[in-house]
Amino acid sequence: MGNVYGKLFSISTFGESHGPAIGVVIDGCPAGLVIDEAFIQSELDRRKPGQSKITTQRKEDDTFRILSGVFEGHATGTPIALVIENQDQRSKDYSHIAETFRPSHADYTYEAKYGVRDYRGGGRSSARETAARVAAGAIAKTFLKQHGIDVQAYVSQVGEFKTPHYTELDLSKTEDNIVRCPDAATAEKMIELIDQVRLDRDTIGGIVTCVIRQVPVGLGEPVFDKLHAELGKAMLSINAVKGFEYGSGFEGTSLRGSQHNDAFYTDSGRVRTRTNLSGGIQGGISNGEDIYFNVAFKPVATIMQDQQTVNKAGEETTVSGKGRHDPCVVPRAVPIVEAMAALVLADFILRARASKL
Amino acid sequence: MGNVYGKLFSISTFGESHGPAIGVVIDGCPAGLVIDEAFIQSELDRRKPGQSKITTQRKEDDTFRILSGVFEGHATGTPIALVIENQDQRSKDYSHIAETFRPSHADYTYEAKYGVRDYRGGGRSSARETAARVAAGAIAKTFLKQHGIDVQAYVSQVGEFKTPHYTELDLSKTEDNIVRCPDAATAEKMIELIDQVRLDRDTIGGIVTCVIRQVPVGLGEPVFDKLHAELGKAMLSINAVKGFEYGSGFEGTSLRGSQHNDAFYTDSGRVRTRTNLSGGIQGGISNGEDIYFNVAFKPVATIMQDQQTVNKAGEETTVSGKGRHDPCVVPRAVPIVEAMAALVLADFILRARASKL
Amino acid sequence: MGNVYGKLFSISTFGESHGPAIGVVIDGCPAGLVIDEAFIQSELDRRKPGQSKITTQRKEDDTFRILSGVFEGHATGTPIALVIENQDQRSKDYSHIAETFRPSHADYTYEAKYGVRDYRGGGRSSARETAARVAAGAIAKTFLKQHGIDVQAYVSQVGEFKTPHYTELDLSKTEDNIVRCPDAATAEKMIELIDQVRLDRDTIGGIVTCVIRQVPVGLGEPVFDKLHAELGKAMLSINAVKGFEYGSGFEGTSLRGSQHNDAFYTDSGRVRTRTNLSGGIQGGISNGEDIYFNVAFKPVATIMQDQQTVNKAGEETTVSGKGRHDPCVVPRAVPIVEAMAALVLADFILRARASKL
Amino acid sequence: MGNVYGKLFSISTFGESHGPAIGVVIDGCPAGLVIDEAFIQSELDRRKPGQSKITTQRKEDDTFRILSGVFEGHATGTPIALVIENQDQRSKDYSHIAETFRPSHADYTYEAKYGVRDYRGGGRSSARETAARVAAGAIAKTFLKQHGIDVQAYVSQVGEFKTPHYTELDLSKTEDNIVRCPDAATAEKMIELIDQVRLDRDTIGGIVTCVIRQVPVGLGEPVFDKLHAELGKAMLSINAVKGFEYGSGFEGTSLRGSQHNDAFYTDSGRVRTRTNLSGGIQGGISNGEDIYFNVAFKPVATIMQDQQTVNKAGEETTVSGKGRHDPCVVPRAVPIVEAMAALVLADFILRARASKL
Repeated sequence: MGNVYGKLFSISTFGESHGPAIGVVIDGCPAGLVIDEAFIQSELDRRKPGQSKITTQRKEDDTFRILSGVFEGHATGTPIALVIENQDQRSKDYSHIAETFRPSHADYTYEAKYGVRDYRGGGRSSARETAARVAAGAIAKTFLKQHGIDVQAYVSQVGEFKTPHYTELDLSKTEDNIVRCPDAATAEKMIELIDQVRLDRDTIGGIVTCVIRQVPVGLGEPVFDKLHAELGKAMLSINAVKGFEYGSGFEGTSLRGSQHNDAFYTDSGRVRTRTNLSGGIQGGISNGEDIYFNVAFKPVATIMQDQQTVNKAGEETTVSGKGRHDPCVVPRAVPIVEAMAALVLADFILRARASKL
Repeated sequence: MGNVYGKLFSISTFGESHGPAIGVVIDGCPAGLVIDEAFIQSELDRRKPGQSKITTQRKEDDTFRILSGVFEGHATGTPIALVIENQDQRSKDYSHIAETFRPSHADYTYEAKYGVRDYRGGGRSSARETAARVAAGAIAKTFLKQHGIDVQAYVSQVGEFKTPHYTELDLSKTEDNIVRCPDAATAEKMIELIDQVRLDRDTIGGIVTCVIRQVPVGLGEPVFDKLHAELGKAMLSINAVKGFEYGSGFEGTSLRGSQHNDAFYTDSGRVRTRTNLSGGIQGGISNGEDIYFNVAFKPVATIMQDQQTVNKAGEETTVSGKGRHDPCVVPRAVPIVEAMAALVLADFILRARASKL
Repeated sequence: MGNVYGKLFSISTFGESHGPAIGVVIDGCPAGLVIDEAFIQSELDRRKPGQSKITTQRKEDDTFRILSGVFEGHATGTPIALVIENQDQRSKDYSHIAETFRPSHADYTYEAKYGVRDYRGGGRSSARETAARVAAGAIAKTFLKQHGIDVQAYVSQVGEFKTPHYTELDLSKTEDNIVRCPDAATAEKMIELIDQVRLDRDTIGGIVTCVIRQVPVGLGEPVFDKLHAELGKAMLSINAVKGFEYGSGFEGTSLRGSQHNDAFYTDSGRVRTRTNLSGGIQGGISNGEDIYFNVAFKPVATIMQDQQTVNKAGEETTVSGKGRHDPCVVPRAVPIVEAMAALVLADFILRARASKL
Repeated sequence: MGNVYGKLFSISTFGESHGPAIGVVIDGCPAGLVIDEAFIQSELDRRKPGQSKITTQRKEDDTFRILSGVFEGHATGTPIALVIENQDQRSKDYSHIAETFRPSHADYTYEAKYGVRDYRGGGRSSARETAARVAAGAIAKTFLKQHGIDVQAYVSQVGEFKTPHYTELDLSKTEDNIVRCPDAATAEKMIELIDQVRLDRDTIGGIVTCVIRQVPVGLGEPVFDKLHAELGKAMLSINAVKGFEYGSGFEGTSLRGSQHNDAFYTDSGRVRTRTNLSGGIQGGISNGEDIYFNVAFKPVATIMQDQQTVNKAGEETTVSGKGRHDPCVVPRAVPIVEAMAALVLADFILRARASKL
């Protein structure tokens, strides 16, 4: 009922922010894949809290344990269950959340939908759930590497500060700074801005751009499961995401067809396009050019300021953030975007195996 | 394999542009629903070609026939099959498409993916497929009406011309002009622009905005099937769509949390928000406020100009559009956006029935 | 909601017995497959009514039309929609069914479940729906032939008369007689019995056995989608089926493990088993030996005799069969069993493509 | 890929016999359900090894831990993850399985399908996986109790010894003896037989019958997801099952329609049938009468005798069972059959909520 993603390379995540553990079951990882635990850990470390001064200062060492599906270092074709115990389970004072709905959080909608709610730290609606996605995504990435596919995301905008187009950037520099922006000058401004926002006890949003290279031609299923439709769903399923665009995106709407069309040519026998406003996808199917897309993240809803709200009894009251939260989510969102992109691609690679005789 | 959408209120579409027929099978329409054939036809008429000077001049009277699932005017709970015969099946000269890949069309990717391709009029990748969605969407809309839910889309941008925010518009005026823009002054400029683009033998993109009102609280399934994630996927699955954003969308990324959060208050015992940058969805679940989102459409790829391309043999050549095509797709996209939104909502209404004891 | 079968090679059937048409949409047929319309028709002819004195005397020429998914004789990878118009749509007197529940039919349960019911000829619950399965199954069979797989069913029991084990029969003789039993002597007794039952205005059940040869090793997905579990579901979904067993089946329960286990040996480098009580499936996965199973069909519920029942008002009354019905369903069930078996195998062949790196 | 069962009340199981843990994620358990941990444990105890002299003497205390989805004793509507650590993980000598295929086990087919295999104790193909089903089934049973539905299975046959029809038995006596047969006299013979088989270093099969009472009318989805088709699939997915029949089953095939049809009558305004050869299901939908069915289990494949087989190198060799195994699986299969039946019913209860307006 909504906690499963993918048709053949499929994941089922579980767990609440402050319950005993979170985790994921991957059903459909092809047998024989090397499962690289160190790589999974390194991906989790890119997402974990407390990495730098511009992320939450909470310390959570997201160490995982694989319970099944791996034998002598290889996937066996059976479900891979992976569990991350929650360390931060001390009994805090949650009364402000238990009875009160935090603005622009999921407290009210969960309460209304289910009638019962694990209010500790946001429960299931907490972004902590994305750790499970990152772990599964690491395995998907390993699978993609077998096909030569490379998935790289980076922060392209925070507030007003934005990078040039990805083709003008060196994405290998993304991890060189704490905001994960490959453009050093812009990165510096972003970090300064986030730090100021943090001191203001406020938050700010941003944009993550993702580029996928060396994608084989033919991934994506018409008509509902177009490659970009699934990428869009996968990105929009990440906490705090408000928008998705690929290729020319929203800006492309103002162009003329004569400007927007990507002329074909041949390059050493391979069909290529001279421009790539299509974003590597035509008719929902990859055409072999770079896939690139933007993901819009809203400002984090938890702010260290008093806000008007109502409680469960319907009385108007105020609530303020407590604890340690991210002033801006995008630096830590980079590995999450990559993970979801990798999961989408892995699924389509398997699905494409059934297209022809 | 990609031609089915929806988990409980589910549709399976079929058909190629110039094959014998297109159609849809709806599996999961609740028994007892009145099936209003006149309404289905009126929705198809909103989408059909040849409506005005700014759409294609092709004449296709999309008349449909219901083959099953309806008895004495009511849905029986069994699959509703609905078929639209293709009238425009005369054997044309398709040699320019048969051997050559039209730029920014799906010709090349289909050929690469399947090894075989129905090239007549774009085959399965033609927007003709969306007629089946509109027919199914009409039935979904009837179901939504039972719940008081209202789905209205309109053209909010063509080229540089854009309308104010939906809250400042009277959406009942959408059908008053041929571009389907409820703001008369802007509509006039849009029509003029599209007409000029047509005379230039070119095309242009635009944005469709959709507003859904009176949505019950509690629709949407965490974590992957968030309401906006499914809406996003549904919209991105429509031909020529390049982007999706809801609520504050991409612009919201530059705001501070203190500006972006929607304060709660109570209104006659009902929990409401004072602002609605959340776009009616929090944590992936509807909160009862208006849902609104934007859908970006690229310029139509078929232009009446010579373009560089390659043929199946890998030789470089040129191709030009033939026949009668839309200079701008958004006026006819309005009912398609509404149809997909209605299908998403109908599915989530049924899914929500399983949330609680 | 129950009208779709198969995960990758997937069918969606629609249609009521006396509505305008029945049909099927196949989503997932691999591109490039030759679609042999004459073969589809010949399979439909094996199922159609009026074939012989021991089947219903209704005349229905199940001629079909392919609406999509086929171009120049080949599957294109897009949905194949196939429609069979209902010829026998004359307005009959259905008042005896409209208000009264026929014993051991689905009249009462459909009425209770849906609150509305197409009572004409049983509507959706009529075995007429299986024509759509047979048409789709013919396409699946063509796909299986590409892999050398052969699916053959036959009548193995009617009343007390039963054939020896399939290994002692020449299955090429199945179509030599009207009861579709490859054992001529037993066939004669079966025909005689059915004819007598018909004269008694009664009906009788029977068993269809199906044998699948040259199955590659490795089809079937643990743990829930075991090959025999899906075969079982597929068979039990056919009208009037009451039981399924494969390999040693129910009789095998009385054996000792030492009698039941199939010893392995090697034959020209291939792993084989000396006996085959496993029925070609071990741990839910095909092992390359013959798959064989039995399907139990109850006696047809429509009998030409007065039976006690109740009407919609809850009043006790009687009802008797009208029209022309089968005294025994198994001869016509043979192609249906084959069709469902072929659909299951086709799906697992595609699924198996995703098992390994 | 086969490790998920159920559409709305859905389970995803994971884990190998001798890996770190097995477990299950339940997605779709309705919010508000009381989760009774003591009851889950008691169900696991009914399945666990070492219960009596006629089961394996292995000691495994299947204690579980709930990782998510439960808050203050109630289901929250989010996934319930439940893990059972494997205690029996000591490094044994598995060389006889690692290189050799045990007859009528899944060793060979897993090796062929995946190319890699966790051979320790059968890995994923071990019946140990069913513990996860029993735990999930306990939660499904609690949900069914809310609807008054009662699921009871028992051993109805071992070897030649069989009980009378369920209507002549007092099912409350099932747990009175170690073979789980409610007929004391037959139970005694069964126990004696199993004990003798054990001393013979052999195994034997049997039949489990399941009865489901107080089922509401209207469960089951035509046409492929008929209630008995899903029950059949669920049962056939259990290790060692070779057959399934419901109502009159295989024996019913020899009856005439006039003997087999269940006449309707009314009882205090409720539609009932005088006989119940339909087994409580008509047209795939429950009619409110008792549902009953038989499940055939083959003799356990592991026997303490030398058997001919081949190894991975294709050389002929022999293999013998080691360790402690069940001489007959049916006593421990009773709670597994109940669990799967409960899961099927729970799913259909939720699905039925979408049938009507």
